[in-house]
Amino acid sequence: MAPAPGSIADVAGITVGHAAVTGRPTGCSVVLCPQGAVAGVAQRGGAPGTRETDLLRPENSVQHVHAVLLTGGSAFGLDAAGGVMRWLDQNGHGYVVGSAAAGRVVRVPIVPAAVLFDLWLGDARIRPGADTGYAACVAASASPPPQGSVGAGLGATVGKLFGIERAMKGGVGTASLRLGRCTVGALVAVNALGDVVDAHGRVLAGARSEDGRALLGSTTAVLAGAGPAAMMAGTATTIGVVATDAVLTKSQATQLAGLAHHGLSRAVSPVTPHDGDTLFALATGTAGAPGDLNALGVLAAEVVARAIRNAVLAARAVPAGDGVPHLPAAGDLHAAG
Amino acid sequence: MAPAPGSIADVAGITVGHAAVTGRPTGCSVVLCPQGAVAGVAQRGGAPGTRETDLLRPENSVQHVHAVLLTGGSAFGLDAAGGVMRWLDQNGHGYVVGSAAAGRVVRVPIVPAAVLFDLWLGDARIRPGADTGYAACVAASASPPPQGSVGAGLGATVGKLFGIERAMKGGVGTASLRLGRCTVGALVAVNALGDVVDAHGRVLAGARSEDGRALLGSTTAVLAGAGPAAMMAGTATTIGVVATDAVLTKSQATQLAGLAHHGLSRAVSPVTPHDGDTLFALATGTAGAPGDLNALGVLAAEVVARAIRNAVLAARAVPAGDGVPHLPAAGDLHAAG
Repeated sequence: MAPAPGSIADVAGITVGHAAVTGRPTGCSVVLCPQGAVAGVAQRGGAPGTRETDLLRPENSVQHVHAVLLTGGSAFGLDAAGGVMRWLDQNGHGYVVGSAAAGRVVRVPIVPAAVLFDLWLGDARIRPGADTGYAACVAASASPPPQGSVGAGLGATVGKLFGIERAMKGGVGTASLRLGRCTVGALVAVNALGDVVDAHGRVLAGARSEDGRALLGSTTAVLAGAGPAAMMAGTATTIGVVATDAVLTKSQATQLAGLAHHGLSRAVSPVTPHDGDTLFALATGTAGAPGDLNALGVLAAEVVARAIRNAVLAARAVPAGDGVPHLPAAGDLHAAG
Repeated sequence: MAPAPGSIADVAGITVGHAAVTGRPTGCSVVLCPQGAVAGVAQRGGAPGTRETDLLRPENSVQHVHAVLLTGGSAFGLDAAGGVMRWLDQNGHGYVVGSAAAGRVVRVPIVPAAVLFDLWLGDARIRPGADTGYAACVAASASPPPQGSVGAGLGATVGKLFGIERAMKGGVGTASLRLGRCTVGALVAVNALGDVVDAHGRVLAGARSEDGRALLGSTTAVLAGAGPAAMMAGTATTIGVVATDAVLTKSQATQLAGLAHHGLSRAVSPVTPHDGDTLFALATGTAGAPGDLNALGVLAAEVVARAIRNAVLAARAVPAGDGVPHLPAAGDLHAAG
């Protein structure tokens, strides 16, 4: 299957950077909107790890954010947001608070973040930190970002419903669509318990058969009575960002984040209560035109689904190593099958 | 007025530590419950800065937290939670994730956090960080914690509705009450825009008259038509924790956090949309008895109000200095008036 075209960086005002941590597969990805973007979030999964999401509620006063961070390292990874704040502050971005007349001008960059659990791959003491977040900002550009085993996707896995030993490699994916004057793009880090399926319901990557050589079809297996492995809450998550250049209010951005989840529902199967799925929405307003949420919602769901599929299609296998099971990528298995 | 007795550390299973940052008045305070406490949050104010609050929603799967952090430094201060996580991890606390049989046991401590804005006092580049959070854990004990100008209260101010130049010193306060088998305590960092009032509505600390020598009464002044100064969103906040030894479900802890806000409404006047008020609730269950939310809610509101008053009663004045206006404490002004 050919990857879907476009990237979230097709949205004017958006840049993307990835950073890796040395020592085991983990890292983070930052979506930068230094001039500020109206933002919302739909935190739907049952086991989230997040930062600065309360201020995104439509009734709360902060209207713009300056970046969104997606990161590995479970809750420890939230520290990487501090590095993103540092980079933004150093480069003159953030809310100006205080009085210039009184000489007390301070910038506070707003950086919501969500994490995914990848601590079971290698030495769990190695996690993204502030320096990783900073490095992702330094690496950010408006070019199409690399996909697959990069940034927050380095330690991401999918198809874990029957144990990590039968899982496959997840990753980061992106895609975009344009309709009329407005563009919508998505960047998603895919670390689901379930499988990733294409637009026809065929499994692209997911839990493997006991011999590890074929795709099982997790939802089919569960419906046929196969009991999933005992999973821990918080050990899986699909986290992402949809961005548009349309002009949206904060309430509309919040709705857009919710509509984007339909794409997750279509590309991940099954979705379980152990997934901490969280999608952010950003509206840069650079198109200068108000958005039609009906159309934007369709686009958002579609680019999220495409980004999820791109993530596993671009991912590379992780060889077995110190505390790391062999995790084949989508391409490997089809070749083997 | 005599300070109200008791402290949040009267709740078995709870310890408290403060830490300061060198260079300007700021710091953080940690409420530790290393064995885990059922937790909830009521994030009510319009301009919050928070971390790990989504997982506290009753429907989400994580049931226990291991600490709550209250910190200065605005959104930058959220990094201090990483230091609290580090201390908990090093001391063997946190959610065990993964399989011991597979040799992949990892601990993830859960540390929700809320911040207050104190960047207008001195050099705003100096903020609590991970080391500050760690130091607060090292300092934690079950003894009654110091109050006033300590920890997260170091840079806290109140009575800012007519400008920071007419404000007074805020701080951290604590109080507790016992009814039957159950104890309820609170720790609150008071950085409100409004005044702090006693149980009879008399102002204890708040905005001062133009000559700086008398208490103005902010609510009275606003009702009489005095226009407040132009304030920035996010520049004030009252943040705190109520803890009980009763056995509560996560939904009940969430309700308790909401009921505790009634105490804030009684002790702070006015409350404005610029305040990012956030109260957490912890239930250690160490009393071994289920809680009656009707009674616990009354206690929670009362200890929050008392803790807020204690905070300003115990605070010490900040002398004018480099980028810091003179901020008298409650005791000073009564003596001067």
